[in-house]
Amino acid sequence: MIDRDKATESPAAANFAALSPISFLTRTAAVYADLPAVIYGAEQRTWAETAARCHRLASALRGAGLNRKETVSIIADNIPASIEACFGIPMAGGVINAINTRLDAEAVAFILDHAETKIFLVDRRYSDLADEAIKNAGREMLVIDIEDPTFDELPSSATQTYEDFLKSGSGDTISPSELDEGDPIALNYTSGTTGDPKGVVLHHRGAYLNAIGNALSWQMPHFPVYLWSLPLFHCNGWCFPWTIALQGGVNVCVRGVEAEMLLCLINEHQVTHLCGAPIVVRMLVDAAAATEKSSEKLRVAVMTAGAAPPAALLQVAQETGFDITHTYGLTEVYGPCAVNAWRPEWNALSVERQAELKARQGVGYPMVEEMVVMNPETMQPAPQDGETLGEVMFRGNLVMSEYFKNPEATDKALAGGYFHSGDLAVCHPDGYLEIRDRSKDIIISGGENISSIEVEGVLYKHPAVSGAAVVAAPHEKWGETPHAFIETVPGKDANAEEIIAFCRERLAHFKCPTRVSIQVLPKTATGKIQKFELRALAKADFAENPGRS
Amino acid sequence: MIDRDKATESPAAANFAALSPISFLTRTAAVYADLPAVIYGAEQRTWAETAARCHRLASALRGAGLNRKETVSIIADNIPASIEACFGIPMAGGVINAINTRLDAEAVAFILDHAETKIFLVDRRYSDLADEAIKNAGREMLVIDIEDPTFDELPSSATQTYEDFLKSGSGDTISPSELDEGDPIALNYTSGTTGDPKGVVLHHRGAYLNAIGNALSWQMPHFPVYLWSLPLFHCNGWCFPWTIALQGGVNVCVRGVEAEMLLCLINEHQVTHLCGAPIVVRMLVDAAAATEKSSEKLRVAVMTAGAAPPAALLQVAQETGFDITHTYGLTEVYGPCAVNAWRPEWNALSVERQAELKARQGVGYPMVEEMVVMNPETMQPAPQDGETLGEVMFRGNLVMSEYFKNPEATDKALAGGYFHSGDLAVCHPDGYLEIRDRSKDIIISGGENISSIEVEGVLYKHPAVSGAAVVAAPHEKWGETPHAFIETVPGKDANAEEIIAFCRERLAHFKCPTRVSIQVLPKTATGKIQKFELRALAKADFAENPGRS
Repeated sequence: MIDRDKATESPAAANFAALSPISFLTRTAAVYADLPAVIYGAEQRTWAETAARCHRLASALRGAGLNRKETVSIIADNIPASIEACFGIPMAGGVINAINTRLDAEAVAFILDHAETKIFLVDRRYSDLADEAIKNAGREMLVIDIEDPTFDELPSSATQTYEDFLKSGSGDTISPSELDEGDPIALNYTSGTTGDPKGVVLHHRGAYLNAIGNALSWQMPHFPVYLWSLPLFHCNGWCFPWTIALQGGVNVCVRGVEAEMLLCLINEHQVTHLCGAPIVVRMLVDAAAATEKSSEKLRVAVMTAGAAPPAALLQVAQETGFDITHTYGLTEVYGPCAVNAWRPEWNALSVERQAELKARQGVGYPMVEEMVVMNPETMQPAPQDGETLGEVMFRGNLVMSEYFKNPEATDKALAGGYFHSGDLAVCHPDGYLEIRDRSKDIIISGGENISSIEVEGVLYKHPAVSGAAVVAAPHEKWGETPHAFIETVPGKDANAEEIIAFCRERLAHFKCPTRVSIQVLPKTATGKIQKFELRALAKADFAENPGRS
Repeated sequence: MIDRDKATESPAAANFAALSPISFLTRTAAVYADLPAVIYGAEQRTWAETAARCHRLASALRGAGLNRKETVSIIADNIPASIEACFGIPMAGGVINAINTRLDAEAVAFILDHAETKIFLVDRRYSDLADEAIKNAGREMLVIDIEDPTFDELPSSATQTYEDFLKSGSGDTISPSELDEGDPIALNYTSGTTGDPKGVVLHHRGAYLNAIGNALSWQMPHFPVYLWSLPLFHCNGWCFPWTIALQGGVNVCVRGVEAEMLLCLINEHQVTHLCGAPIVVRMLVDAAAATEKSSEKLRVAVMTAGAAPPAALLQVAQETGFDITHTYGLTEVYGPCAVNAWRPEWNALSVERQAELKARQGVGYPMVEEMVVMNPETMQPAPQDGETLGEVMFRGNLVMSEYFKNPEATDKALAGGYFHSGDLAVCHPDGYLEIRDRSKDIIISGGENISSIEVEGVLYKHPAVSGAAVVAAPHEKWGETPHAFIETVPGKDANAEEIIAFCRERLAHFKCPTRVSIQVLPKTATGKIQKFELRALAKADFAENPGRS
């Protein structure tokens, strides 16, 4: 009987190392020292330079008194410091807490308090917001300004600048002492559906594995040129700072998601890869269509998640030069960790059928131990029939450690040995899953479940519709009824009767919207439609005209 | 301060899973159930079928009384059962011991004894060898014949056939109970330098990580068609059974490395990837040159290791359609775990310079924590000057657990927190290392390691031999060949033919010297034989008579 060498348990042994994405930076800074790592406007730094700055940041953080497992918050756009934070903070043994820049001061204050922030890195652009939040939080913390000439007239209460702070660190190689691969690397607050945001704790091992999962699932070659169209505060940019380090790529930084700017950077730096919500893809496609000159040679791999890309968008994106990979995930599973893994035989199908297939959320990354559609009552897998609705559940190394300081929510989320995503899906006979709704987005009308996503899919087929969201409105007779909110394509008209008739031709009648509002859709920073606002509007509309329809 | 969820330490938790390459089979059998997994002549099986057979094998092994961490040996060509063994044995909690088919019965007997083999899977082609070895070993073990109509007239002492054995297993999903990722997955015997072969113990975690390292370092896309030109008994086929499962590829099985057969399979199945020693590449290139018809569309990614491919071979291979990736490793580090990572700017260099650069062994895979050229006396890294010789050392998850039942050798190999490879190298200013010599006197002939010390041990048994030293001589076909230098006992005569015949009675033929020089051996003041002088003589002798032997 073979017993493993006990030496593997000692971190000092020749044959063991804690898994951490820091190792990707270490290797790439050695192997590809002189290759570009970060580009931001006129700034450009190699991997050796970037690694040196990360080590300085780690050293400075330790010098400022940061202890192991303590939180460093950052509120910033996708600027070089945001990338450096993803390495420098964990090198110091700290935990990265990247805060959504679209939050209000109250929400930021809640996070600073709850996360027990010791040091706060603030992009000068957000100094106002940060200052107000710090006042509300009523905590002592060291505030570091990440300077930018564009914003230096804004007031700030920081005690020093990021560049000065880096200078206070030593240039020596820093690595986390006593690192356990289960140690926290990041703390990400989810927008939450009810009550206060929850702080998702992710560890080094999971970040290492999901960074690999991104590369393998996307078939990313070495030296990608990656455009930061996805906010880094969104689940640490879906682990991509670590993936790009792993692959020796270039991080093309940019503030905001203004389509012409993104397209300009794509052409200038020959961008090969980017991520974003379907809305970002839509903007890019429209912008590319408006500037014909570049479109013929454009060929960019685009990973999208957050909502299934509509069929029409998929087709036009492909034609414009964007090769869409559809992924799925949540903050609790390190960002995307499921992929619509494209099967070779699908290439022979019609474009419409391809779009239908690509709209599925697919299968777990190889690093996900298990992703399964389960009956949450029985904890048994749903039959793979493409019809039976169940909850998407995950198990394995890509499930969060916990909700920080929230054991009840943790226990509930991890009950029965699986993470409960709250997303409702079917599993097709081929094993690919397709999300039909967030559990809270299910509309129950006359006792029948209606998937808002299914109704939205039909609405998107209407030629005048550019955006659609369906929520439950109260209904005197049926309890709930679908209320559709629609954005129209500029220059095209639509009215409620026409939209309802369009749906009734394509859907069971009980699933069709009975109320339609044509308006601009409220969206989050990451382009997600804010359904809770629409629900409020639907409720108000019902209160005004309860008897309609 | 954030504490990791203690749940991550429980294997039953939602957020932890032991890393094991078995998970790649589980996922691929679910996601790509109907895609081809294994092709061997007219046999073809999907991933679902292959996984089912692996589960049956695991179940049958358990049914036959195999306990956790016990050894199952296999002696076989690259046939489907060899692939299945890489999953079925570890699923049962057992340890794979794949035995080199070129060993003699005495060496096989030593391994069966030392490995404490409980069950022995024997390719019918090797029944003779296995039977003799089992007799020599004098151990009780269950012997299973892997049948093949080609060889069924050979005698066999097996009690049942592989297919019957599979039928004795259940079709249920089997997974190792209580798996710890540090548990042994494989036990591989190295040819050794002094004394008996050493059994290298590799674990699930390392196999998982190196399987990923192969895919990432080779930029392997999904669905590779992989030709098994590399023996599966060589460090479990360099972890490729697991890599191919990870990528949903096809294993094209084949007995032996007959070039026309390989080329035929390459064309028939549109092979995309294969591995082999430079000799295999040479044979393929020659065979392809002889059959013009296919060469224009041939494009195969070839991973080679074991010796630096000569410049001339690299160039002609490229022209013929073989894209060479040069890797480096040892059994103790899971096979190749270093790669000549090609830098984009090298494409602009002359073909000669490219060949020089490609001859370097390069840099560690991303999953290798550290690969470094060190002064073994001071344990300090050698300067990156391309001149200072040091020993290649490794640290991290891809270093073996131990030499089985050999704590002294383990301690020596892992002294100072690094695995000592025994290979002498320089580190270039760009961080790429290049091997200059082997401190262990290994001769690599046709991809097989030959211990000069083992051959010397046989030579010393000859009554006329008073001194013997064996070094590597260049060989046009095999890369290297053993050249024996002999001093005779005064008054006794010996000639080359007699010495070679003497060796062939006592050693596997590939290990026997093909050149013998009888002369006074050059020695140091303290009486040590100066092998470097003999190497120069061997080289000169080759230059004079390259075609001999």
